[in-house]
Amino acid sequence: MDRKELELYLVTDRSLALGRSLEEVVEAAVKGGVTMVQLREKNCSSMEFYREAVRLKRLLADYRIPLIVNDRLDIALACDADGVHIGQSDLPYPVVRNLLGKNKIVGLSVENREDVEVANRLDVDYIGISPVFSTSTKTDTAPRLGLEGVEEITALSVHPSVGIGGIYSGNAAEIIRAGADGIAVVSAIMSADDPQQAAAELKKIIDSEVKKSGRS
Amino acid sequence: MDRKELELYLVTDRSLALGRSLEEVVEAAVKGGVTMVQLREKNCSSMEFYREAVRLKRLLADYRIPLIVNDRLDIALACDADGVHIGQSDLPYPVVRNLLGKNKIVGLSVENREDVEVANRLDVDYIGISPVFSTSTKTDTAPRLGLEGVEEITALSVHPSVGIGGIYSGNAAEIIRAGADGIAVVSAIMSADDPQQAAAELKKIIDSEVKKSGRS
Repeated sequence: MDRKELELYLVTDRSLALGRSLEEVVEAAVKGGVTMVQLREKNCSSMEFYREAVRLKRLLADYRIPLIVNDRLDIALACDADGVHIGQSDLPYPVVRNLLGKNKIVGLSVENREDVEVANRLDVDYIGISPVFSTSTKTDTAPRLGLEGVEEITALSVHPSVGIGGIYSGNAAEIIRAGADGIAVVSAIMSADDPQQAAAELKKIIDSEVKKSGRS
Repeated sequence: MDRKELELYLVTDRSLALGRSLEEVVEAAVKGGVTMVQLREKNCSSMEFYREAVRLKRLLADYRIPLIVNDRLDIALACDADGVHIGQSDLPYPVVRNLLGKNKIVGLSVENREDVEVANRLDVDYIGISPVFSTSTKTDTAPRLGLEGVEEITALSVHPSVGIGGIYSGNAAEIIRAGADGIAVVSAIMSADDPQQAAAELKKIIDSEVKKSGRS
């Protein structure tokens, strides 16, 4: 994958969409500059998850934006998603890679140095540094890593990386300066009054930092 | 599949295992006469589900008893299970068959005549008639079908069938007499003081009814 696809990574949460459909928020966010979308569902049936994945896949294909499915490899296979994102308590990475094939994207959450050292020995496409800050949108997280954690992990990792957890326009620049290739956000876009504008604002901050860093 | 494999179908529920491991209960049940096992997990991580599936697959392979995974096609693929059982709100049947291949078992729960008519047009391996009686082990069920429902559905269905929901030694014979090829049980074995003996007792009842019916 192109590491620029990680720059502004939207992770969905329908409970934060203020009553709007996921497609409505995701389409607005993509128009604003989101570079990748992860469908995360924790409390719906497999049928609902599948139908939502099919709708998003169709929508995102028009914009050439990759769709990543959180945890559920079967849903990813069923909708021909571009990849899967797994955490440390999801299916083991080798199992996912084997079933998904080498042409799909597999991202892995890392929560500490040990996780990064394990990831370095795997052909994962990117790591999600989780959580950078405290967040209310995911309650089963490891301790916050902070900006020092992001610096340490990006220095150690051989893979592209994205920070996640409590990131918004007020701290997005720091994550990029700490070495991450991008930021992943949930509520900063899902719950924005204007998701397109929120995405555009975040993208502008990232573009500016990436340019300053000489990585663009 | 051989329809005799449906005769005594154990569906797991670790919360009903009285503190024993699933493997311990399943192995005893298989020694008692269980002919097929479905791993059903609703409240654990994908990693835990996968590890349990791998352990059961290894155990059951020794006894040549098929392992079916409830709902989660990815877990079935990951552990090379013998099949998947899907309900009406799981992944659509054609998607599951396509990803699993024609040599694996796919079972489908039916809750009314319409579901059976749809199933009749599909190459499902068996149907699960659900729920026959009221049950406390699954709370999201459709209305109970009763023995009349089992008679009606088995007459209508072109596929082998198993009844599920509130079945135990006291009503197992009636399910077979109503036309089902087998019974699926959860608590009647999972919560038995002696799962091997409980399975043996159920198997004896089924064998006797199958013999009387002239289907054996």
